Amino acid sequence: MFAPVYLDHNATTPLSEAVREAMLPWFGERFGNASSRHEYGRSARQAIDEARARVAAAVNAHPTEVIFTSGGSEANNLFLKGAAALLKPGRLAVSAIEHPCVREPARQLQRSGWQRQEIPVDGNGRINIDAFRQILAEAPALVSVMLANNETGVLQDIPALAAEVRVARGWMHCDAVQALGKVAVDFRSLAVHGLTLSSHKLGGPIGAGALVLDKRVELAPLVAGGGQERNLRSGTENVMAIVGFGVACEQAAVGLAERAGRLEALRLHLEEGLSALGAQIFSASAPRLPNTSFFGLAGIDGETLVAKLDRAGYAVASGSACSSANPEPSHTLLAMGVEPELARSAVRVSLGAGNTRQDVDGFLAALGENLAKLRTLTAIAV
Amino acid sequence: MFAPVYLDHNATTPLSEAVREAMLPWFGERFGNASSRHEYGRSARQAIDEARARVAAAVNAHPTEVIFTSGGSEANNLFLKGAAALLKPGRLAVSAIEHPCVREPARQLQRSGWQRQEIPVDGNGRINIDAFRQILAEAPALVSVMLANNETGVLQDIPALAAEVRVARGWMHCDAVQALGKVAVDFRSLAVHGLTLSSHKLGGPIGAGALVLDKRVELAPLVAGGGQERNLRSGTENVMAIVGFGVACEQAAVGLAERAGRLEALRLHLEEGLSALGAQIFSASAPRLPNTSFFGLAGIDGETLVAKLDRAGYAVASGSACSSANPEPSHTLLAMGVEPELARSAVRVSLGAGNTRQDVDGFLAALGENLAKLRTLTAIAV
Repeated sequence: MFAPVYLDHNATTPLSEAVREAMLPWFGERFGNASSRHEYGRSARQAIDEARARVAAAVNAHPTEVIFTSGGSEANNLFLKGAAALLKPGRLAVSAIEHPCVREPARQLQRSGWQRQEIPVDGNGRINIDAFRQILAEAPALVSVMLANNETGVLQDIPALAAEVRVARGWMHCDAVQALGKVAVDFRSLAVHGLTLSSHKLGGPIGAGALVLDKRVELAPLVAGGGQERNLRSGTENVMAIVGFGVACEQAAVGLAERAGRLEALRLHLEEGLSALGAQIFSASAPRLPNTSFFGLAGIDGETLVAKLDRAGYAVASGSACSSANPEPSHTLLAMGVEPELARSAVRVSLGAGNTRQDVDGFLAALGENLAKLRTLTAIAV
Repeated sequence: MFAPVYLDHNATTPLSEAVREAMLPWFGERFGNASSRHEYGRSARQAIDEARARVAAAVNAHPTEVIFTSGGSEANNLFLKGAAALLKPGRLAVSAIEHPCVREPARQLQRSGWQRQEIPVDGNGRINIDAFRQILAEAPALVSVMLANNETGVLQDIPALAAEVRVARGWMHCDAVQALGKVAVDFRSLAVHGLTLSSHKLGGPIGAGALVLDKRVELAPLVAGGGQERNLRSGTENVMAIVGFGVACEQAAVGLAERAGRLEALRLHLEEGLSALGAQIFSASAPRLPNTSFFGLAGIDGETLVAKLDRAGYAVASGSACSSANPEPSHTLLAMGVEPELARSAVRVSLGAGNTRQDVDGFLAALGENLAKLRTLTAIAV
């Protein structure tokens, strides 16, 4: 297979070596339904318990607070719709830059009688605190703000926002899918009522995620049935994926600051090169994930550029991967007040463990070449 | 690891060799978010498309009718709650012997205004057709009857039932999780509106399932977000599990009659031995899955016996695995009119590809020994 340099780690990540090793036994001799009361079942249950302890430790939560799901999208849906199902329809507020798997359930709730409000962001993609307070004044029952944005990488001050939501007596949910493994994520310090995690963004497999849940929050299960996960998520547990998720979490906590520092230096180098090529780095002056660079190139079509870079051997993203079937410009950028034309030119580079300075230099060279060609074409067309 | 003889294939199955081989590349060099527009994403998308074609072919459906989910429980919840969300609350009817992942969503719907009716079964666990017609006379909007019961293995005449539901203008759903891979499952012949499949009951991995859906049925997604699976199931697709599911389906179709014949002969041998030990085989005279034997042993506690058999090297189930955290006797047996005391003695043996006549003989010997001991204890206690 032709293997381009992978610079799209916010979409998904390759399995880390430690994760692969931990999962492999479940690929062969080990198997079992964790609800079965024989050796195979007990062995599966034990593996899940160990993984639960690892996930909990990685985010400073108690193992009993961890509800395994099939991934981050399900965990976000579970919190919002699961909590709403046991409340009288009221107000809910989600930020304007949430992932579609928060925005869409919020829209579904709106159709079933909830009043949905969007929390606006400033030009850097940070929550507008005055608008946030105005929304809180109307006492929304549910509030959801992500820790790190998947496109810009912008970080929010969740502990401060959560404190205000608690005063307003709402449930505060936080999607930490993109943050986990890249910056410290601490359930106690964030002090939110629900925290969404995903395995495949940090070297774990697709197919596992978690909702870390404050026990005061009552939820109706999205997937009801056999009663697994304290009756909050039924279905035979995906042992292999959960085992991998556990190890990925454990690994993520080891040497986090060092890894983050290395990636940030690499990103700085990348962004120097990008600026030299005339790129506008979005959210450049805001606190951001160390690995993420989202930029616009005036007059260029981002989709076209991404396809050309792919052929040149560099895998990057235009919008967020999950909405890339959608030709609309990034809703995150539009919420930040970026002009639609510039938003359509956006490209995201998200670095990961395997990336080197050589990868970045190669990418910058390929970008430069393709930009020159595209600009020539545009000039001719004009 | 101590490896008992595995006789619990209705709970979950080990990965088949072909499935493992197909999945392995996704464990190493291959990875990608199928929504990404670069080589990695396209490669993942292609693998999912191939798997979708395999799953569709295995059940005589069109690939566009296959919606991948994280498993059977999710697919059952998706059909029932997803369809109900777009209808005015009305009547829904589910059989009394459905798996909890059909029974529980039906109860959730009841709490949100639906009238829930249970379709009774006869002493063999087959749908009581007169009661079924009485229920249909009230025109339920949603009906769900499983193809094969997970505990007794009893098969229902779904084409006949579905025909009557269509006349009554309802949507007919069928949980075929336990049937797939053991008997022929044909979406067109069953002529249901929704059909639930699961990967890990037929040599595929846990973490993948499907709802095969008639396009006339509109559903609200349980997991809303990025718009994957025709907007009916968002979340990054679990490529590795889906690939394994596809191959498991393809394999299941090959030599099905032969495999079924071999397992049925093995089960016949088992049941001769069971009868000699005084066991009462449930649903013995009803059409059943070839691999499943569910039996009672008067005066014995099933849970205790299963634990003793496990120590003796044989992994079998007492109730259904998914509800084994629940000490209540099997709801399937109670619905069949079996006395609670006899139901509490129930043990399920579900045979699979790797099982031999030697396994069955060994199991019967272990069962005989343990029964003798338990009966002596009971006699002393009395």
